[in-house]
Amino acid sequence: MRETLHTALRKTAGAAPRISIERILHPRSLAVFGASDSKAKFGGRIIHHLVRHGFAGDIYPINLHRPEIVGRKAYPSIAAVPSAPDVAILAVPVSTLVQNLNEAAAAGVGCCVIISTGFAEAGDEGSSRQSELVEIAARTGMRIVGPNCMGIIVPHHHMTLCSSVVLETDKLRDGSIGLISQSGALMVSIFDRANDDGIGFRHCVSLGNQVDLEICDFIEYMAGDEQTSAICTYVEGLLDGPRFRRAAAACRAAGKPLFMVKTGRTEAGVRSARSHTASLAGSFESFAAICREEGVVLAQDPDDMVRAAHLLSLHRGCRAGGVAVLSTSGGGAGIASDRVTEIGLELATLTPETRERLGEILLPPQADNPVDLGGRKMPESTEIAGLATEILFGDARVGYGLGVLTSMPFFAVRSKLIGEAALASGKPCILVLTPGAAANTSRQILRDMGQFHVDRFEDALRVLSLIDTHLRLKEAALPAPIRPAGLPVAAPSPAAGSLTESEAKRMLAAYGLAVAREAVAETPDGAAQKAQEIGFPVVLKAVSRDIAHKSDVGAVSVGLASGEAVRKAAADMLVRLASSAPGARIEGFSIQEMVRGEAEVIIGVNNDPQFGPIVMVGLGGIAVEILHDVALAPAPLCMTRARAMIERLRSMPLLQGARGRPPLDIDAVADALVRLSWLAADLGPQLVDLEVNPLIVRKRGEGAVAVDGRGTIATT
Amino acid sequence: MRETLHTALRKTAGAAPRISIERILHPRSLAVFGASDSKAKFGGRIIHHLVRHGFAGDIYPINLHRPEIVGRKAYPSIAAVPSAPDVAILAVPVSTLVQNLNEAAAAGVGCCVIISTGFAEAGDEGSSRQSELVEIAARTGMRIVGPNCMGIIVPHHHMTLCSSVVLETDKLRDGSIGLISQSGALMVSIFDRANDDGIGFRHCVSLGNQVDLEICDFIEYMAGDEQTSAICTYVEGLLDGPRFRRAAAACRAAGKPLFMVKTGRTEAGVRSARSHTASLAGSFESFAAICREEGVVLAQDPDDMVRAAHLLSLHRGCRAGGVAVLSTSGGGAGIASDRVTEIGLELATLTPETRERLGEILLPPQADNPVDLGGRKMPESTEIAGLATEILFGDARVGYGLGVLTSMPFFAVRSKLIGEAALASGKPCILVLTPGAAANTSRQILRDMGQFHVDRFEDALRVLSLIDTHLRLKEAALPAPIRPAGLPVAAPSPAAGSLTESEAKRMLAAYGLAVAREAVAETPDGAAQKAQEIGFPVVLKAVSRDIAHKSDVGAVSVGLASGEAVRKAAADMLVRLASSAPGARIEGFSIQEMVRGEAEVIIGVNNDPQFGPIVMVGLGGIAVEILHDVALAPAPLCMTRARAMIERLRSMPLLQGARGRPPLDIDAVADALVRLSWLAADLGPQLVDLEVNPLIVRKRGEGAVAVDGRGTIATT
Repeated sequence: MRETLHTALRKTAGAAPRISIERILHPRSLAVFGASDSKAKFGGRIIHHLVRHGFAGDIYPINLHRPEIVGRKAYPSIAAVPSAPDVAILAVPVSTLVQNLNEAAAAGVGCCVIISTGFAEAGDEGSSRQSELVEIAARTGMRIVGPNCMGIIVPHHHMTLCSSVVLETDKLRDGSIGLISQSGALMVSIFDRANDDGIGFRHCVSLGNQVDLEICDFIEYMAGDEQTSAICTYVEGLLDGPRFRRAAAACRAAGKPLFMVKTGRTEAGVRSARSHTASLAGSFESFAAICREEGVVLAQDPDDMVRAAHLLSLHRGCRAGGVAVLSTSGGGAGIASDRVTEIGLELATLTPETRERLGEILLPPQADNPVDLGGRKMPESTEIAGLATEILFGDARVGYGLGVLTSMPFFAVRSKLIGEAALASGKPCILVLTPGAAANTSRQILRDMGQFHVDRFEDALRVLSLIDTHLRLKEAALPAPIRPAGLPVAAPSPAAGSLTESEAKRMLAAYGLAVAREAVAETPDGAAQKAQEIGFPVVLKAVSRDIAHKSDVGAVSVGLASGEAVRKAAADMLVRLASSAPGARIEGFSIQEMVRGEAEVIIGVNNDPQFGPIVMVGLGGIAVEILHDVALAPAPLCMTRARAMIERLRSMPLLQGARGRPPLDIDAVADALVRLSWLAADLGPQLVDLEVNPLIVRKRGEGAVAVDGRGTIATT
Repeated sequence: MRETLHTALRKTAGAAPRISIERILHPRSLAVFGASDSKAKFGGRIIHHLVRHGFAGDIYPINLHRPEIVGRKAYPSIAAVPSAPDVAILAVPVSTLVQNLNEAAAAGVGCCVIISTGFAEAGDEGSSRQSELVEIAARTGMRIVGPNCMGIIVPHHHMTLCSSVVLETDKLRDGSIGLISQSGALMVSIFDRANDDGIGFRHCVSLGNQVDLEICDFIEYMAGDEQTSAICTYVEGLLDGPRFRRAAAACRAAGKPLFMVKTGRTEAGVRSARSHTASLAGSFESFAAICREEGVVLAQDPDDMVRAAHLLSLHRGCRAGGVAVLSTSGGGAGIASDRVTEIGLELATLTPETRERLGEILLPPQADNPVDLGGRKMPESTEIAGLATEILFGDARVGYGLGVLTSMPFFAVRSKLIGEAALASGKPCILVLTPGAAANTSRQILRDMGQFHVDRFEDALRVLSLIDTHLRLKEAALPAPIRPAGLPVAAPSPAAGSLTESEAKRMLAAYGLAVAREAVAETPDGAAQKAQEIGFPVVLKAVSRDIAHKSDVGAVSVGLASGEAVRKAAADMLVRLASSAPGARIEGFSIQEMVRGEAEVIIGVNNDPQFGPIVMVGLGGIAVEILHDVALAPAPLCMTRARAMIERLRSMPLLQGARGRPPLDIDAVADALVRLSWLAADLGPQLVDLEVNPLIVRKRGEGAVAVDGRGTIATT
């Protein structure tokens, strides 16, 4: 909520920004508030790092008491600096921060990077303090990064605007990966780990509390920066959902992988549920659906995404495929193969030519994927290691290579040959070196040649999985959906509150969904009469906007075969509801045809506060309710996406005709999803949720019929 | 099959073993065939390692041409050695191996460890060569380890009977963990990795092709060895299932964790399925059920299990509990908390006292699990890191500690304080150091104090998960089940082949399962007559031992309300089956009462070739057939284990009464499982499979009724 307030303030009261993101990341001049000679102080470490790494622009140390800091002329205040610096960094006590900021704004500073803490992250008092920062940025147009951030590192510009001890290194490693992290400590830890892996960055930005510049400002910039090849982000909460979608789309359009570690995933289920859809389309699930749609790859671990970005940057033309496993021992090959399959990657099926060529150098059981180098035809020929790698990883069906190097004689020589062949394959390949110090020489050889390697199976598998996810999402990208012909021109405008079943079904019918024939009556006698018109057998339901789940309270009677049966069922129902749903207003009865079919599906839509309507599909019964086997995607949908959602369901084989069942009308389900999605898109923010449960699905070619519906319209 | 042959040979033709496992692992004297001065040769490296690491017994190099090797007197043949050595190691060409073995046997060698390759792993020729080794062992009583193994390492005995380069280290690290690996390359890689982690072993044994000594020989020994605290195993295939169960039980009885990495998991589903049960209770699933029953913890990665064994050995009294997360940054705490929950561990709920004590030093949002050390009340007090760790990890509800150290000022000092407090907690605690080289000083400090640490979140989580699994399986251990009263004294002795439904149900009824009332008729007219006796409505089924899944071919009609309806349905069915099940012999009709209930459950049993009858339970419909939501356990069962199986099902909430449904008779399902399990145990190897599908479950207290059954009896 705090964040929303800030966003609003920034948007409404904003003076024009003084400085571009490009200039913030490549400033000509820097001021350091609280500069010091002592590396025990934040401001001291920052200025030491700038000097050590050779920042080529002007550096203005600000210190009231000292004429010179680290050999540079110091100034008693920002006002005393000869010309307004592009960027200032403030690691000052929170008590003087606002004053310093106002001075910086007055002096014409383009952007302040605020390291200081004690704001929104520190409770209510800090939160009101944070509002003052928002106000300064909005009023003056001076940009702010932070507060509570760790600064910015731009290796190719020698700009180490950061106090972290990880900068106490001899050389900054330049690279093409952009890193944006809400957490400063993570940013520098990731930077340092990547440095050990031989991976460099183009820009590293820590965001902190995002009072002004937020993650999308930097994603947008990096999407447009020609030298950036991939973007990695760590996010706790997004400020602007639609902007994030646009920024992600820009990355995809520019051909740049966008990775994200998003925390707060497991709190997603906490929100109390208004309906099945609401409880299933909780916020993280919705966010994950948005990411899938926009090609954003969610990672569990920050270092994994950097490694995946690195390999994708090295091999930009690579394509999704199976994994080839090569090991120096049968045990390594066995473990890797099991795990490849278990995490959902595919073990590549080799072409006959590859198997034949492998068969020339390896014994028959080993001349296929996985390859066990232990099974050589001739004794101890080290060259075979490189040759087998070249043949295996070069197979046209192989997307990625996984080499498992357990302890072996001539470890270093063989590692070199395998590494060279892996690099030459032009595909993302990872070598796993499972021993400890015994493999250190090999590690150094591989590092020197630039062949990526890790110490553990799982590290390699997670990275390959991220790469595969990126490539498959890229292949699954679709153009914006086109509105189907024949939908209403004007969106419906239902009254606020719960919809009755009839109201919900009327809206669905208007959008072309098949709904069960229905008539409404006020009394048991009237119900019996309407049933004659529908034709027996019929279903009888109570009409009440106070009852969300009719079956649960006995508000549904099925298979009624005569007028008398309908009359009696209706009368009994009134008695029953008086105790099972006390206080519910019963507006009458709905009499419906009995729809028969082969399976029940639930489709629904839930309005995510950040991302708008999210459509859901799942099989009725335990699949949705207990096993949470559902698929989500943002509205509106095209048929291709709707079909892909259905295909993602684990229970999908039931619809396809598993175990001697007939294949069902999956296209009719997809069509219903598409129509529901457009209804939701047309209703926009007024729709809270809408659900068809069940949608009765018939055999292929025979359609699907909505027999119950419910929904909620927002009170504005 | 090969292995079974060897096992049989060994068992039937065996001379008494010459030497104990204890003596093989602690020999007084060693002979090295192919000994050499050159470290480029296997025999050269072995003798160098023995000398370097100070083996205190006699060493007899065998070399036809050299009088002295590495300063030791060499012998031209084993016959020339002055007294028979306890153990000989052979890394000789496969062409001379059998001769050397025979010479060793003649010389009275106790055990030969065979490094040479070219046996069963190398195809048919190697396989017949391997039979000769089996024969020598069986005939002479000389034991064999291998072939195709990497030898044995026993640090406390300074016995490095192994050619691997990982032994080129200054000091062997002694420890209390036993390691047994079918793969030699993995054994030495694990050994070397553990050495880097500061973890030592009591014995490391590589098994190779197991022509004589097999994994259970060593598990049994280590279970009884007082100095061994935990056992880690790498297994590709077990030779003797029942012996393995007994060995695992011995480990549990001795209070020793037994871990295993088992490959070949993903081939489990390949066996073509005879029935639901057969396809679900495939061999790896059966094996996993055995492991759960015996407390064996299955790991994905070999190093993980060694690390878990290490932590459990350090903290032998520790108990299962929640995870406490402590981090130096909010980002680290967030990632760790999400992942703890996602992998199925529990984030500990702290006691009010702990939260109060944390609140004295930390800001309110940080004074709970997870603890973010960034939220200190006072600025930059390093001591708080240790104090917060002590308070948090000391909480009575905390089972394990997870500390995430991202880059921070005063990294080394704080790491030391956190490490000391974690060690002092007496619980399994893992620190994750996410930066690269910037954390190296901290790594050294932690290594020196013996506090276990890793570089990556996932490494820590997998190890904690293994520890948690071990402790929970330990708590779930049950005594051998007691035969329920009232079961038949004599096991049934059905004829070989498929059972008809009636035959299956008669056996089930004899063991006390409730089965639907049933009558059998030969003709449609007879069926109509029997239906009158049962009472309408009835179910009509064709009787045929040629039809496994009756509904799939239209051999079932339900809800028949009159004699005429039964007659017509039976006549129609005959016509239908002529085309849907051509060639199936129809023996007649079964007429059954319509059993009504709230849910359908499948229970079954499948005879695993290694482990005997394995019982299965799952919910009918898509839960079992498509989502594979099943639970398995070896027969026979007690009620507690049967209930635990049902509780493991993901679809369990349906039985408990989710979403307004009535709670069902779970005890009746458990009782049916128990009775089925005893029937299976009594039938023994003659039973191939047996299945009740469905078992109709009624509301709590109202029972469960088997309405269909099928099974197969082995042809002997």
